[in-house]
Parts: sequence; structure tokens; C-alpha cells
Amino acid sequence: MSDSIFTQIIKGKIPSSKVYEDDEAIAFLDIHPVNKGHVLVVPRKQYRNIFDTPEETMAHLIVVAKRVAKAVKEAVKADGVNIVMNNEPAAGQMVTDHVHLHVIPRHIGDGFREWFGVGTYNAGEMDEYAERIKKACD
Amino acid sequence: MSDSIFTQIIKGKIPSSKVYEDDEAIAFLDIHPVNKGHVLVVPRKQYRNIFDTPEETMAHLIVVAKRVAKAVKEAVKADGVNIVMNNEPAAGQMVTDHVHLHVIPRHIGDGFREWFGVGTYNAGEMDEYAERIKKACD
Repeated sequence: MSDSIFTQIIKGKIPSSKVYEDDEAIAFLDIHPVNKGHVLVVPRKQYRNIFDTPEETMAHLIVVAKRVAKAVKEAVKADGVNIVMNNEPAAGQMVTDHVHLHVIPRHIGDGFREWFGVGTYNAGEMDEYAERIKKACD
Repeated sequence: MSDSIFTQIIKGKIPSSKVYEDDEAIAFLDIHPVNKGHVLVVPRKQYRNIFDTPEETMAHLIVVAKRVAKAVKEAVKADGVNIVMNNEPAAGQMVTDHVHLHVIPRHIGDGFREWFGVGTYNAGEMDEYAERIKKACD
């Protein structure tokens, strides 16, 4: 896998507005923020998405995201915070070769809407879906 | 804090379509799915949101979400998966008294859009925001 844009940021080849870093992860401002103060949390080691990222790395990323979320909320006086992870282009992943978590500050009435077109299940369908997922979890 | 709707599900007082459970967390179908197979991952212990949930609980939830994401992708033949956590009503948190992660299967062209109105920074503003968040991270 060639260096992702995030790996280039980590190596200092591309500038970024860093807000946090440790041995395993860094966090910097998204240059296309949903709201100002929108941060990306990225592991130093390059994985593609949640499917190929080790459990311990995922655990570290969410702990960093928690810390960053608190800091962002305080720094921009946000009313709430979304943690979002898009895995694969179908899910809106833009940088498709380096896993990342979005930490997005939210303000009441900021117009950013996530749930767009909520579905429903037909009778009996819910049990069927649950059964299939349950089996795949084992 | 009185029992949340999720705590009532955990106690078996309200039925749910469970797909996974362990000593600390459970996962079941969201009754208002973005797409069919949309799962919620919930800790058995009732915390409000990411801000008051202990690091080790967050770490466990994301590890469960990874496992569920893989299962959902396989079970519904999804092209991608979003992991979403809404903290506080301003961020779209509906069940406001019990922290939860959404695991949302996505299909190419399903019309669900997350990024709605992307902002920009004025000149110099990015450094200023980064500095404020960085300080709040310490």
C-alpha cells in the first residue's frame, strides 16, 4: 500500500493543524469541516478501515476520540459531538486507504442532519435479519 | 437516573431483536433503521454519552462494534458500514440517557447522506481553532 495522504501528514510531508498526538495516533483538523473544530483521529499505522484494523488499535482510537471530543466541545462551546466512522466508499469514506474517526462539534439547529430517509421492517423481517446477523457474529 | 429504554431491553422488560451479547454489552436491531440490519451497540451499565462513559467501556464498545460491523456487512451483503455515535440532542442523540453506537450497513447509491453542508475556514482561522482544541486536550 502506498503512503496515504494521512501517512504523508504523519511523516510531515503535508502540513496539518494538529491538536493531539501520541505514539500510536494523531488528531488534526479536517480541512473540509462539517462545523469548525471538526477533527480527524488517525492511527500512525496505515489500515484501510474498521475491518482490517486490529481491536487494540480501534480501542486506542476511540479513547483518543473521547479525549478529543471533550476538548472540542469545550474549545468551540459545542452543544454536542458526533463520532463518525465511514468504512468503504459506499459509506462515505473519502480517504479510502487510511482508517479515521471524525469528531464533529454540533450546535443546536446547525442544520447538519444525519438520519436521512429512515426505513422500516415488514412483519417478521426483523427477526430474520437479527438471526442472520447473530449467526455472522459467531 | 431511572431505567432507560435500553436498560429495560437489557432487563428483558421490552423485547428486542438481539444479535450479540457479552458480560458488558449487548447489540440489537434499531427499530427505525437507516437500512435494514442497522444495529445498536449498548453497554449494560447505563452512561449518558461519551463524556461520562469510562475509557475501558468505550474501548469494549468499539471492539464489539467492529465485530458486529463485520457480521452485518456479511449478513446483508453491504458495500460499507458507518459507525456513528451521537452525543447530546444537538448531535442527534435520541435515547439521551444511555450511550450507544450505531452500526449502519450501507449500499452503493442508497441515498443516505451524512455530510450535509460542509464548511470552510477563513484565512488563519484553522490555526486558531487547532490551538484552542490542542490546549483543551492537555
